[in-house]
Amino acid sequence: MPEQLAHGHAHHHHEHHFRSTEAVRDVVIGMSDGLTVPFALAAGLSGAVHTTHLIVLAGLAEIAAGSIAMGLGGYLAAQGDAEHYASERLREEREIVERTRDEEEEIYEIFNAYGVERTEATSVLEALKRRPEAWVDFMMRFELGLEKPERGRAARSALTIAASYIVGGLIPLLPYMLLHEAYSALKTSVAITLLALVVFGGVKGRLTGTGLWKSGLQTVLIGGTAAAAAFGLARLLSAS
Amino acid sequence: MPEQLAHGHAHHHHEHHFRSTEAVRDVVIGMSDGLTVPFALAAGLSGAVHTTHLIVLAGLAEIAAGSIAMGLGGYLAAQGDAEHYASERLREEREIVERTRDEEEEIYEIFNAYGVERTEATSVLEALKRRPEAWVDFMMRFELGLEKPERGRAARSALTIAASYIVGGLIPLLPYMLLHEAYSALKTSVAITLLALVVFGGVKGRLTGTGLWKSGLQTVLIGGTAAAAAFGLARLLSAS
Repeated sequence: MPEQLAHGHAHHHHEHHFRSTEAVRDVVIGMSDGLTVPFALAAGLSGAVHTTHLIVLAGLAEIAAGSIAMGLGGYLAAQGDAEHYASERLREEREIVERTRDEEEEIYEIFNAYGVERTEATSVLEALKRRPEAWVDFMMRFELGLEKPERGRAARSALTIAASYIVGGLIPLLPYMLLHEAYSALKTSVAITLLALVVFGGVKGRLTGTGLWKSGLQTVLIGGTAAAAAFGLARLLSAS
Repeated sequence: MPEQLAHGHAHHHHEHHFRSTEAVRDVVIGMSDGLTVPFALAAGLSGAVHTTHLIVLAGLAEIAAGSIAMGLGGYLAAQGDAEHYASERLREEREIVERTRDEEEEIYEIFNAYGVERTEATSVLEALKRRPEAWVDFMMRFELGLEKPERGRAARSALTIAASYIVGGLIPLLPYMLLHEAYSALKTSVAITLLALVVFGGVKGRLTGTGLWKSGLQTVLIGGTAAAAAFGLARLLSAS
């Protein structure tokens, strides 16, 4: 989903829109797993355990583990992107000075892939050579396919993902916290989580262009399948 | 991490390399969460439960839920990408016929952002107009920033992610399956999982260019922090 969101919305918008799309993307990443995995785990354990105390414990431990793993993972991924961009940019800056010929040739190759002849690409090349900064920008985007990462994105991304995971994960756990009998908590949890998945999927579908109902059904399908598998497995294992 | 991998390696390689990079990316996605979350959950539960039976049960339920959530999530994301690409492509094909002027103007705008004047971009525009198929390809990549998705990628991606999650998740659970006392299983699990995280992180660092040791340390940091938080939380909750 992350890529689809980035592809679908990042283009030809100014920076403010781009930033809010990144935030939406991070909420979607955190919440889709947060609503699904703790829900499925708790449902699974209800198939084997009869009091809710242990289910809440396992659910909260999962939320702690999952939110940290995803948040820190997101932080390091964004930081890695930023470092990768910076080092590739430095290399391009050096190459257009030290290996000007090769870099010129690469521009011809980029255009050649679209059937544009050398003579037809020359004027663009000449224009880029007049402005080395723009030339580097051009190579970053069109040769390497890299977008300039935003400042401070890594930390913001990590916090958004982790917070969304926690919020998403607490919804299915609430009934287990309030009710003492596992099976009735399970029924309530299934009801409110499926509802939350439909709403979340629908909103996501609106934002990504997948369509409200289609996306709502998809998230319910993922959550439902995961929960059913965990429940079935736990039943099987606790019976044996 | 997904994006960094895609950005770092997808460019100027032919299709075979691209495909194996996608597979590496999916293994990394599945295994980094698979090694981390079930490990942290099991470690967390060891802080509250004294026999391993229930820890194995919760761990396996988590693996079932997590692998399905991530696998299905990956499937739908890739399918969404493919649908998005196809619909945007259709629209571009229509637009270069029905709104030729606007599309020509968009090419000038793309170049203008890099300081290339209208007169300098005209020859490229003329070349693209001679080959409508290449024109559409050019707009997909340079206006919309979309890459043509591979056929069959969605299913392959889903299976790779899910399988990697399962393999990663079973490593930390093995000691709990073989030993009966939670605390000694925890110690063994910590030892083999940290080792697995270092190796996995190191290999990942090699492939992504982050560097062997840096990446190894990062994955250990994520896994260790998640496990410590889950352990502390479970201890706290079971004491109260």
